[in-house]
Amino acid sequence: MTQPVNVVTPKRALISVSDKAGIVDFAKALHDRGVSLISTGGTFKLLQQHDIPVTEASEVTGFPEMMDGRVKTLHPLIHGGILGRRGQDESVMAEHNIKPIDMVVVNLYPFAETIAKDDCILADAIENIDIGGPTMVRSAAKNHKDVAIVVNSSSYEEILSEWDTNGGLSHATRFNLARLAFEHTAKYDGMIANYFGSVPADTAPSKPPETRSFPETFNSQFLLKDTMRYGENPHQKAAFYIESGELEPGISTITTLQGKALSFNNIADTDAALECVKSFEEPACVIVKHANPCGVATGKNLTDAYHRALSVDTTSAFGGIIAFNRELDAEAAEAIIGKQFVEVIIAPSVSKAAADVVAQKPNVRLLACGQWGQRIPSLDFKRVNGGLLVQDRDLGMVSESDLKVVTKAQPSPEQIKDLMFAWKVAKFVKSNAIVYAKDGLSTGIGAGQMSRVYSAIIANIKAKDENINIAGSAMASEAFLPFRDSLDQAAEMGVSAVIQPGGSMRDEEVIAAADEHGIAMVFTGMRHFRH
Amino acid sequence: MTQPVNVVTPKRALISVSDKAGIVDFAKALHDRGVSLISTGGTFKLLQQHDIPVTEASEVTGFPEMMDGRVKTLHPLIHGGILGRRGQDESVMAEHNIKPIDMVVVNLYPFAETIAKDDCILADAIENIDIGGPTMVRSAAKNHKDVAIVVNSSSYEEILSEWDTNGGLSHATRFNLARLAFEHTAKYDGMIANYFGSVPADTAPSKPPETRSFPETFNSQFLLKDTMRYGENPHQKAAFYIESGELEPGISTITTLQGKALSFNNIADTDAALECVKSFEEPACVIVKHANPCGVATGKNLTDAYHRALSVDTTSAFGGIIAFNRELDAEAAEAIIGKQFVEVIIAPSVSKAAADVVAQKPNVRLLACGQWGQRIPSLDFKRVNGGLLVQDRDLGMVSESDLKVVTKAQPSPEQIKDLMFAWKVAKFVKSNAIVYAKDGLSTGIGAGQMSRVYSAIIANIKAKDENINIAGSAMASEAFLPFRDSLDQAAEMGVSAVIQPGGSMRDEEVIAAADEHGIAMVFTGMRHFRH
Repeated sequence: MTQPVNVVTPKRALISVSDKAGIVDFAKALHDRGVSLISTGGTFKLLQQHDIPVTEASEVTGFPEMMDGRVKTLHPLIHGGILGRRGQDESVMAEHNIKPIDMVVVNLYPFAETIAKDDCILADAIENIDIGGPTMVRSAAKNHKDVAIVVNSSSYEEILSEWDTNGGLSHATRFNLARLAFEHTAKYDGMIANYFGSVPADTAPSKPPETRSFPETFNSQFLLKDTMRYGENPHQKAAFYIESGELEPGISTITTLQGKALSFNNIADTDAALECVKSFEEPACVIVKHANPCGVATGKNLTDAYHRALSVDTTSAFGGIIAFNRELDAEAAEAIIGKQFVEVIIAPSVSKAAADVVAQKPNVRLLACGQWGQRIPSLDFKRVNGGLLVQDRDLGMVSESDLKVVTKAQPSPEQIKDLMFAWKVAKFVKSNAIVYAKDGLSTGIGAGQMSRVYSAIIANIKAKDENINIAGSAMASEAFLPFRDSLDQAAEMGVSAVIQPGGSMRDEEVIAAADEHGIAMVFTGMRHFRH
Repeated sequence: MTQPVNVVTPKRALISVSDKAGIVDFAKALHDRGVSLISTGGTFKLLQQHDIPVTEASEVTGFPEMMDGRVKTLHPLIHGGILGRRGQDESVMAEHNIKPIDMVVVNLYPFAETIAKDDCILADAIENIDIGGPTMVRSAAKNHKDVAIVVNSSSYEEILSEWDTNGGLSHATRFNLARLAFEHTAKYDGMIANYFGSVPADTAPSKPPETRSFPETFNSQFLLKDTMRYGENPHQKAAFYIESGELEPGISTITTLQGKALSFNNIADTDAALECVKSFEEPACVIVKHANPCGVATGKNLTDAYHRALSVDTTSAFGGIIAFNRELDAEAAEAIIGKQFVEVIIAPSVSKAAADVVAQKPNVRLLACGQWGQRIPSLDFKRVNGGLLVQDRDLGMVSESDLKVVTKAQPSPEQIKDLMFAWKVAKFVKSNAIVYAKDGLSTGIGAGQMSRVYSAIIANIKAKDENINIAGSAMASEAFLPFRDSLDQAAEMGVSAVIQPGGSMRDEEVIAAADEHGIAMVFTGMRHFRH
């Protein structure tokens, strides 16, 4: 190994942090390595309290901190020290008594935390917009050729470790720190822009603003999790990004226990399978192929649920994605591995024994995402050419008590259970969606048709092909039945109960048809288009 | 009308712009309104050349511009002047001889333009990271209660006009200018973060970096175009955002000529219809329902194309989206309006006579998007829970010369035309997609199935239901045929030629089946999954 080149050993550091975690130890460590420290405000006081020798920035600039800290470091004796080009600007620096600053440890006023409070008034939000901080961060990041910029307390340990190994920080390290710095300021100003863009211009400073849901500009930052061999198709390059912060357990929180790298389509399909299986309380299994569930079942345990889910469409399940809502046990793992070619198995967790079973097929991707709890509201996107549709994630779900019976026939408690099951599945089938279900099993799934009646037709055909008797099943339609035709189709197959949003111009005609067939029908008042 | 409250009449402005468009006139106008001007660098020289009285920033600060402009305005006599809280900080300002600055006209070094050059070396990119500019922009935006920040030359006229009406700028105006300012810096640092995140840390400053396609963080900014009554479903709130800059004519460049506001689903479906119709050179019509084309046709003119596209699935076309690739003429408009309920009609342009025809149905949304030319590469997104899949937009398309005949039967020139037509349609049908086509008309479309053979089955059923004879049609499968079953289905319907990517483990079996049926089959080597 050759020695890293372009190592910089900082001699003078400016420290001014809003997040004070670890700062005392880090400052002490810098001091111990011969670094002289400059600081401001609260950080200065904290370091002094811990007897760490430190110079106040105002002493460097000859200007006092003023305006309650609004102006502290915006001075050429600071910024000239950060921005001065070593080997080039020495004479002008000497002339103006500017001493080099070769490390900047700064993070920013907590704007996000401030505006997250329900009662945050506009004036408080504005006061928490940091000016001096981002300027130092950006100055130092720009001049990373000679300056190290540290914006995350999580970097302290690694920095000291490299320092002790190499006698300083390499160019690659300084470049990466600069990247983190610009990511930090980009995210910061993105948040501010989102905030300003959602606050009415006439908001009084003393009032919590009535923020709009969608700001004038939509600024976002995602973190690279993985690049892939290709995207939805081999001629498309692709990568997978995740949000920062705490995430709901799901496709973005997975641990890969074994298997090949996930493809673009694996990730999309695993997300679909997992979000669907989250709908169920009982042990459940969802098998997804091409973004649609092809088999969904609950069962007395995961093995039972899996066998049932597989039974309704063994053809499509080949090479599918299988999601569970309980820890994967060895028995269920055995059932899958002995039975079918599978791309991905995902569960909140995986028992050691189950992992050992799946290890027989080393290509199978085995994923654990962690146990989910309360669902977290977030935004859903749909890309169009040159634009982005942004909407609330569809977390809507009716309960039994929301159902409105509209037919003479009243659904039995068993039918209500079947209706709710079919409804939960239909929410995750691409529109137009028709789902038949009985006893916690999807007995027919008709997906993605341009006309609703063909979704019913395709569900019928698939059920017949799999020798499944639809008779007595419930039927769900994720959007209203516009005509009686789908209902007639269902009746022909022996469907005994129907769930749908209602709200068609022809509701009466559809209700009359149900009455004619002796079918019990409930309206949800909520639809679940998914395209 | 009451007089606007909180009007600020700037007395002292700092001007330092990278984009010099209109700045001389604006500065002159400010001077004429009694504003004293401070400036720096090139802007200072330009204003002097035009005999506009102006003070150099270095004269205000007592510090020279130094380090080739790296440090010019980072000084308390500038930033105290911008950030000082009026009515609160006067004494400290007086004590330090800080004079208020109540307008800042600044835009930033052209980072985007710099890195857009193929041969941009890392050092040039870094030198074009503006430090002083964003600091002034952010200072002024923070203190918008008393300061006006102007980042866009497009704002000059409006500002002067309000000034002359109200004697200054209202609080609402200053707030909106501050919002634009933070949007400007957010976008700027987002670009820098994207750049740093795509450059290898060991890039030499004198080299054009070998940038990675996907940066460490993905930072983006979209502009609000419209909020909607709701999203994909009524319980989801939604908005439509577009990219900044020049856009390929499409859903994001539409002019609404008449009709109700577009819904979330309208926008998604119109995008699908329009992108599909762009595939054709001849006059063409695409009708979309639930994100899938339900009828696609070319014709001798738009009317002909429309009638043909409608003919293959009149049921689904009801309430559909209709897209054309030529200026909409009165005859085609008449054909639609007289014939069916339609949600959206879109074309590159709309003749006056056609607009008059559509005016009979005032609810119909009539859109013109402008004439497209070369397609522009961009990124496609797919949202998953907590994350974002990012990939190249699918702009791949084979030409006739890329087709590889794999069967004994050779396709005739007519069959080649039919195959290419079917292939172009299949690219825009949700996977699994099977498309039959003949003579520039989609004769059967099987969309969105979890198993490919059911896409063939549903296409067959729909064709039969519409009394369309598939015999002699070409068939396209957007991904390889994994088994011979779909091909057997096709043969039964009289399909005479097949186009598919090829690449299945069982290609030989599928080719043998085609030979058995006397079908000509070509491989594209490129697939078009679309989920």
